[in-house]
Amino acid sequence: MSPRDRYFVPMAAPRVRTDQGAKTQVRVGVLGLGNVGGALVELIATNADAIEARSGVRLDIAKIAVRDLKRGRDKALLPECLTKDAHEVVSDETIDIVVELIGGLEPARTLVLEALAAGKQVVTANKELLANFGPELFDAAGKSGSALLFEGSVGGAIPLVRALRVSLAGEHIRRVMGIVNGTTNYILSQMSEEKVSYKDALVEAQSLGYAERDPTADVAGFDAAAKAAILAGIAFNARIGLSEVYREGIETINVSDIDFAHRLGYEVKLLAIAERIETAVPEPPRIAVRVHPAMLPTTHPLAGVRGAFNAVFVEGESSGELMFYGRGAGGKATASAVLGDLLDAACDVGSSARESHLSRVHVTIDPIDNLRTQYYLTVDVLDRPGVLASVATVFGMHDVSIRSMEQVGLGEDARLVFITHMAREADVQATLGGLRALDVVEHIGGLIRVVGHEL
Amino acid sequence: MSPRDRYFVPMAAPRVRTDQGAKTQVRVGVLGLGNVGGALVELIATNADAIEARSGVRLDIAKIAVRDLKRGRDKALLPECLTKDAHEVVSDETIDIVVELIGGLEPARTLVLEALAAGKQVVTANKELLANFGPELFDAAGKSGSALLFEGSVGGAIPLVRALRVSLAGEHIRRVMGIVNGTTNYILSQMSEEKVSYKDALVEAQSLGYAERDPTADVAGFDAAAKAAILAGIAFNARIGLSEVYREGIETINVSDIDFAHRLGYEVKLLAIAERIETAVPEPPRIAVRVHPAMLPTTHPLAGVRGAFNAVFVEGESSGELMFYGRGAGGKATASAVLGDLLDAACDVGSSARESHLSRVHVTIDPIDNLRTQYYLTVDVLDRPGVLASVATVFGMHDVSIRSMEQVGLGEDARLVFITHMAREADVQATLGGLRALDVVEHIGGLIRVVGHEL
Repeated sequence: MSPRDRYFVPMAAPRVRTDQGAKTQVRVGVLGLGNVGGALVELIATNADAIEARSGVRLDIAKIAVRDLKRGRDKALLPECLTKDAHEVVSDETIDIVVELIGGLEPARTLVLEALAAGKQVVTANKELLANFGPELFDAAGKSGSALLFEGSVGGAIPLVRALRVSLAGEHIRRVMGIVNGTTNYILSQMSEEKVSYKDALVEAQSLGYAERDPTADVAGFDAAAKAAILAGIAFNARIGLSEVYREGIETINVSDIDFAHRLGYEVKLLAIAERIETAVPEPPRIAVRVHPAMLPTTHPLAGVRGAFNAVFVEGESSGELMFYGRGAGGKATASAVLGDLLDAACDVGSSARESHLSRVHVTIDPIDNLRTQYYLTVDVLDRPGVLASVATVFGMHDVSIRSMEQVGLGEDARLVFITHMAREADVQATLGGLRALDVVEHIGGLIRVVGHEL
Repeated sequence: MSPRDRYFVPMAAPRVRTDQGAKTQVRVGVLGLGNVGGALVELIATNADAIEARSGVRLDIAKIAVRDLKRGRDKALLPECLTKDAHEVVSDETIDIVVELIGGLEPARTLVLEALAAGKQVVTANKELLANFGPELFDAAGKSGSALLFEGSVGGAIPLVRALRVSLAGEHIRRVMGIVNGTTNYILSQMSEEKVSYKDALVEAQSLGYAERDPTADVAGFDAAAKAAILAGIAFNARIGLSEVYREGIETINVSDIDFAHRLGYEVKLLAIAERIETAVPEPPRIAVRVHPAMLPTTHPLAGVRGAFNAVFVEGESSGELMFYGRGAGGKATASAVLGDLLDAACDVGSSARESHLSRVHVTIDPIDNLRTQYYLTVDVLDRPGVLASVATVFGMHDVSIRSMEQVGLGEDARLVFITHMAREADVQATLGGLRALDVVEHIGGLIRVVGHEL
C-alpha cells in the first residue's frame, strides 16, 4: 500500500474496468426505449468515439429492455441488445450501470431497487419515481454504496441537480424557485404574448406535442409538484415527498388576469418554490414547498423565460442569486443529462452525490396556511352602491389589508380587482370564505400570489 | 478483496480521513487572506457544523498563509492558524487540500505545483494562473493523480466549470458565449439604461468598487480573455492559452453606438466566445476563441443580463441552449464556489474532473481573420455629394456587402452607420484600410460584431 492510500476506505469502489491507461470501459443496461431511451441509445451509439476521446470513458450498451421487441427492433440502432426481460438487465453481472427510462412507478421502482441491491450504479430521469419513492430508493443506494443519479428528472438538459448537490453542497440555500414545466410555461407565454385564451393555447400546445391529450399532469401542476419535491430535497438535503407539496394548476388563469398583471409590471408564471422559513428556533429547519401560479416582477430573471423553456432561480446565503436556464424536456435534451450522469457514475465520481456521504437532515414542512405574501384576486360583484364597503369589510375582518383596488367593467360585468399587502394565506382563505357568503358576490376569480419582490 | 473491488485500480485514492461513519474530516490549508480568502475562512469557521450536517464533511482550517502577519491577525477569525510561510502550508503533511487564493502568477504557480507534487488536492480561483500556466498545472495534477479544481476562476458563484466538465462531459458543445466580466457589463448597462458616457459610467463603477483605479484589465478585455481561455479549454477539452484568445475591449464604444443598436433591436455586450468551427475535416477540431464587444438581439437571454451580473450561454448538440447566471465576482460569491470545490475534493469526487481521467484533445485555433459574421461600423465623412459612392465602392472591392446604411448628422457631423451582411473579418479589415485611405473619410468608429442571430 502506498503512502497515498493510507486513509483510503473503499466504501464504494468503482465498478468499472480501468485499463493501464486512463481509459475506462463501462457496460450500460438501458431500461426503456421511448423518447429519452431512444435518444440516449442513438447518442451513445453514434458518439461513443467522441465521448471516449473527450471523457476517457468507453460506454458500451450491453442490453436494452423494451416492452415490445418488434416495435423496439424497428427503431433500435442495436437490435442485438434488445430484450423483453428487464430483470435480465438488472441482474446481468457484466453490467456496471443501469439507466432507468421506463417512467412511472412500477416496475421502475422494483427494477431500480434490484439494480442497487446488485451493487450497480443507477441513473434515472423518472421524477414520479423519485417524488414518490425517493426515501426508499436513496436508502437502498446508501446501503449498497452505489450512486443513484437523477439529473434528467428536473429541468431536462439543465445541469441543476449536480449544481445543487455538489457545487452548492456547502451553501446555505434560502430559496429555490423555478419554472419546471415547459407545457404550462408555453401556454402562459402564448396567453401573455398572443392574448389567446387558455383553451386555445392548450389546444395549440397539444398540436405541437408540448401537451398530452389528457393535459392534467401538466396543467394541474402535478408534474411541477414532483419536481418541486425533488428540488426541495436536494436544496435542503432532506427527504420531501410529493404529498408534502402544496399544489395549484393554471386552469383558472385567464387573459384578463395576465393583462392586469402586465399593467402592474408583473408576468404570470407557474412556479415551483422551495424555501427555508427563518424562525427563532433554527432546528429542525422549516421548509415550505409549493407549486402555484404566481405574479413575478417583469424585471425578475424568471419573468423573461418564455415558451417551453425551463429555468430555476436559486438564492444562497453566500452565492447570492443564481439562475439555470435551458430546455426542460424533449428526448435529446433529457438524454444529454442522462449521459452526463452516466459518465459521472462511470468515473465513480459523485461520491459527494452518493447517498452514503450525505447525512439527510430532518425538516418540518411549513403548511401553506402559514404562507405570507401579497395576493391578487378578482371578485365579480353586482354593480350597486355599497358593494365595495361590504367587500372591504370582509377583508378587514380577517386582517387582510388592501394595497390597491380597481373596478373593471360595469353592470353585469362588474369586477373588482384587488392586490393585498403582505397577508397570511389562512387569513386570505378565510376572506374568500367570507366573500363567498356575501349576496353581492357572484364569483371569485383566480387567486394569484405575488412573489419575487425582495429583489 | 471483495468482488465489488475487482476492477478497482487506486489511481487517486482519497487523501482524507474517513471514520467508521460517513463523516469525512479534512484539513485545509489556505494561501491568501484577501477578499475571497477572508470570506472563505469566515464561511468555514462560522458554518462548519452546518456544512458537516449537510455534506458529511468536516472542514478544519489548519493553516492560513498571509503576506503580513499583523494585518492578517487583525481580521483573522483563526489567528492561531496564520503563518507568513506559504511553503510551510503546502509542505505540511497533515494538510489534505490546499486552497490557492493569492492571485497573480508567482508565487501562486510555484506553490500550486509544490502542493500537487506533495499529492494534495488543490482548489484555486486564480484565472490568470490558469490562463497562463494551465497546461503545466494540469499536467502536474495528472501526474500526481490529484484534483485541481477551479470553479471560482470563472463566473464567481456560478457553478459553471463543473457543469461543463462533468454534467456536459458527453456533450458535443458548439459554442460557449458569456458575459464574464462584471465591471464592463456594469459600464455598458449604465450607458444603455442611463445614457451616461463611457467615462462617466467608468467613474461610477470605480466609485462603487466595481472597477479598479487602473481599469485596464477589465475594460480592455484582459480579464475576460483569461476566462475565455479557461472556458474554451473545458468546453472543448483542450489546452488553450491566453495568447490564443483574440481580444478587444469596450473603450471605444459610445452611447450613440448603443442607441443605434437599440433602434435595430440589439444590446451591446462584451462577450467571451469560444466556438467550434464546423469544417469538412473534423480532426483536429477547429476552435475560435475571442473577446470583443458584440451586438446581441434583445431577445437573446444574454441581452437581459444587467449590471455586475455574469452569465454564460452554452449551445450543445443534444442539450440545446443552456444559460448559467449569477454574481460573477465578490468575495462571498467566489468563496461559495471555492467551498463547493473544497467539498468536492474532500469527497475525492471529481474523478471525472481529475486530469488523469481526461484525455485532452489537440485543437487548431481559428484565426480572427477567418471569422464570418455581420458587422456594425460607423464612418465619419465629409458631407458632400458622391461620398457614399466612394465609400460603398471600397466595401464592394473587398467583397463586403452592405445590409443597411444610414446617415446620421449633417455637415461636419456627418456619420454613415453601416451594418454589413455576413462577411469575413479579413475582408472587413481590408475595407477599413481602404476607407482610411479615402480623403472624404475623417474617422472610423467602433466596429461591433453582430452575434446571436441564429436563435
